[in-house]
Amino acid sequence: MKEKILTADWILSSPELPPLKNGAIVIKGSKIEDLGPQKEILSRYPHYQILNFKNKLLFPGLVNAHTHVPMSILRGIAEDLPLMTWLTKYIFPVESHLKREWVYWGTKLSLIEMIRSGITLFCDMYLFEPEVIRATEEAGLKALLGEGLFDFPSPGYGPLERGLALTEELLKAFERHSKIKIAVSPHTLYTCSPDTIKKCLKLSHKYGAPLHIHLAENKEELEEIGKKYKKRPVELLDSLGGLQENLLAVHCVKLSPEEVELLGKKGVKIAHCPESNLKLGSGIAPLPEMLSVGLVVGLGTDGPASNNDLDLFSEMKTATLIHKGLREDPTIVTAKEVFFMATEWGARALFFNDTGKLLPGYRADIAFLDLQHLPLQPDYNPLALLVYSAKAGYVSDLMVDGEFIMRNYHLLSIKEELVRERIHEIKEEILHILRKNFSPSLDK
Amino acid sequence: MKEKILTADWILSSPELPPLKNGAIVIKGSKIEDLGPQKEILSRYPHYQILNFKNKLLFPGLVNAHTHVPMSILRGIAEDLPLMTWLTKYIFPVESHLKREWVYWGTKLSLIEMIRSGITLFCDMYLFEPEVIRATEEAGLKALLGEGLFDFPSPGYGPLERGLALTEELLKAFERHSKIKIAVSPHTLYTCSPDTIKKCLKLSHKYGAPLHIHLAENKEELEEIGKKYKKRPVELLDSLGGLQENLLAVHCVKLSPEEVELLGKKGVKIAHCPESNLKLGSGIAPLPEMLSVGLVVGLGTDGPASNNDLDLFSEMKTATLIHKGLREDPTIVTAKEVFFMATEWGARALFFNDTGKLLPGYRADIAFLDLQHLPLQPDYNPLALLVYSAKAGYVSDLMVDGEFIMRNYHLLSIKEELVRERIHEIKEEILHILRKNFSPSLDK
Repeated sequence: MKEKILTADWILSSPELPPLKNGAIVIKGSKIEDLGPQKEILSRYPHYQILNFKNKLLFPGLVNAHTHVPMSILRGIAEDLPLMTWLTKYIFPVESHLKREWVYWGTKLSLIEMIRSGITLFCDMYLFEPEVIRATEEAGLKALLGEGLFDFPSPGYGPLERGLALTEELLKAFERHSKIKIAVSPHTLYTCSPDTIKKCLKLSHKYGAPLHIHLAENKEELEEIGKKYKKRPVELLDSLGGLQENLLAVHCVKLSPEEVELLGKKGVKIAHCPESNLKLGSGIAPLPEMLSVGLVVGLGTDGPASNNDLDLFSEMKTATLIHKGLREDPTIVTAKEVFFMATEWGARALFFNDTGKLLPGYRADIAFLDLQHLPLQPDYNPLALLVYSAKAGYVSDLMVDGEFIMRNYHLLSIKEELVRERIHEIKEEILHILRKNFSPSLDK
Repeated sequence: MKEKILTADWILSSPELPPLKNGAIVIKGSKIEDLGPQKEILSRYPHYQILNFKNKLLFPGLVNAHTHVPMSILRGIAEDLPLMTWLTKYIFPVESHLKREWVYWGTKLSLIEMIRSGITLFCDMYLFEPEVIRATEEAGLKALLGEGLFDFPSPGYGPLERGLALTEELLKAFERHSKIKIAVSPHTLYTCSPDTIKKCLKLSHKYGAPLHIHLAENKEELEEIGKKYKKRPVELLDSLGGLQENLLAVHCVKLSPEEVELLGKKGVKIAHCPESNLKLGSGIAPLPEMLSVGLVVGLGTDGPASNNDLDLFSEMKTATLIHKGLREDPTIVTAKEVFFMATEWGARALFFNDTGKLLPGYRADIAFLDLQHLPLQPDYNPLALLVYSAKAGYVSDLMVDGEFIMRNYHLLSIKEELVRERIHEIKEEILHILRKNFSPSLDK
């Protein structure tokens, strides 16, 4: 049946509205049609199918604003190392042997984790991105996706020109797709020359597509760009015409106050990835300043090889806690703000403007928190439960565009056992590569 | 049967030893008798009962070095507020009406959360602590417990002298108890006068009991102690003879480098509570310095009203991430160090010296991580999985002193439904108090 009513103990439609106790949501096709107290809704729509969610808290599906999902196959491969050792001794050697099917199965592994933790929309940049697209379409999630572009030949597509051609093909193929959007995705300013960035911008303008890039992530990037171009990263991108409303800039840890202002004025979108920034020793982004100039900031986990999860509950908590502690002020970066970042603002940062809150006219992208888990009791404050107490495993059901993709902890669109088997085999292949070529220490 | 062999995919006996693939642990009574590769162990102990834990990672039960477990009944009651508003408008008003049975049921609620997240030992200070003791004994966990002592009359025991008398009674009653130890627990230096601290120290010396106190938590404490005594908190406690091996000092956020040295020299034990320190805006403790002088540092969640959970997985991750980010160095505060803090060092900080690792002669206090959860795949690195990827809900089984208290996600010593019902009723009572007397804003 296309029309249904979901009733639940609590509905948090948006962090700016009070949570609805004993509420009901009306869904017609892929959209939310109405919302209100159960009694009112049930009498207003007498012929709709009713689904009861006792002990559940319904909230907008979470938005993971930046990740590299296939990297789940490298989760935990090397830890607590300097960034360059981690990259050159472990990540790059494996990526130079990267196989198309590893990307597909690594994506599946990550999709399972994201579905089980309430994520309905994500943004990804990696190699062999068509495999990410294939797995995501099969799973039924929404995403902004793009092939990572570099000056040097890519293990995915070969020389840059073929990467740009692939991106253009994808832009055409997904121009009117309801769930998948394509971003032109130059990797960084230190792996893409100004000329490459200009080509990317041209493509982005031609198709009205987002440009997705890592920007000002750490002091090494500042030094390298400074040495090469005598500019700061934001300044360099600005000089190329890159600061614009279509830009999704990831990390932005190393911003001066003037750069925060500038990004705000230009309407740039930000993907803030606090746990990755901490774990890799990049630093702490000036989130309170970003929010105070009205920047649209989403929240991302970054790749599961550097986090090591795809858990936006944990990311929300980290995003709010770290600034309270650092500035010794418990009132800044509130639960409300980080929940906005993980939902509506994240959706806007990914250029999906019809999702991220549960209100009439919006898409029915809904996550269901299972309040049977006792660490979610007592339920004085649903928003605080979501941000400060909920765990990735506590989501029982997930709906995208009005269709369930998980019901009562059972995944409807991915076969978990098959994924487990393939990941086990891929792990053995990767260990073989590392042992043979690069890291005998792994055998210890 | 008293003797058994547990076989598992992985056994991480201590972070200083490589994890054992396809290992087995031999348990006799309450202790670990042997440990090794499955084949070897099975042939060495042919008549022991064998329990197979396929797809499980066995690790030492986690140690929560500081909390206030009954405060779970206040979880989420007020958020993102200045500490004094939070305390005086919400926490204190409810605590002034605190009932003995609220403490009992709040403890049960917290015990469920701790068991389900792999905690076998914890340390608590609160009001009506005999109720905490009762609930903990029923649940089968280990703990260092003490009635919080203040100069002013307590809602728990009344005037201070009765609190001291209660503490002495408990010290006698639990002198030889195998699972429960009692700590003399003066709340802080700003709620206990030097005279009170001296009385507490006397009691501690008489029974050889630990002294458990919050110390140097935030700048407000520094200011208040400075104004009253012209000393810093650590200096004041030192002048009273309080810095000694029996001291468990909680928080220690505001330490000078000299104070870190001094605590190290005196053999003081530390309970580090990073998430609470962040959330309440207290600051960030100098953990790398503490570790470098060889301080025994445990890891605590603090109370669930200020965290808002009892999740040591999350606490480990936060403890390692925050310093990497703050100092822009991914190599400091490693997974190994925070895992030590959450196990062996935590146990030593709580004066339980026969637990915290899975080696012959140690108590069989064991947690079982369920690797069926796909965010725990691939399993290149069990230690990294525990610290960076595991979630509170992924623990399937828990053993204390050789006895299971959770089997395959089923709690054997607490009835969850009963706890849920009572917590719901207590929540309504608390809302009634808040609405009537203090916080009309709660009705919004």
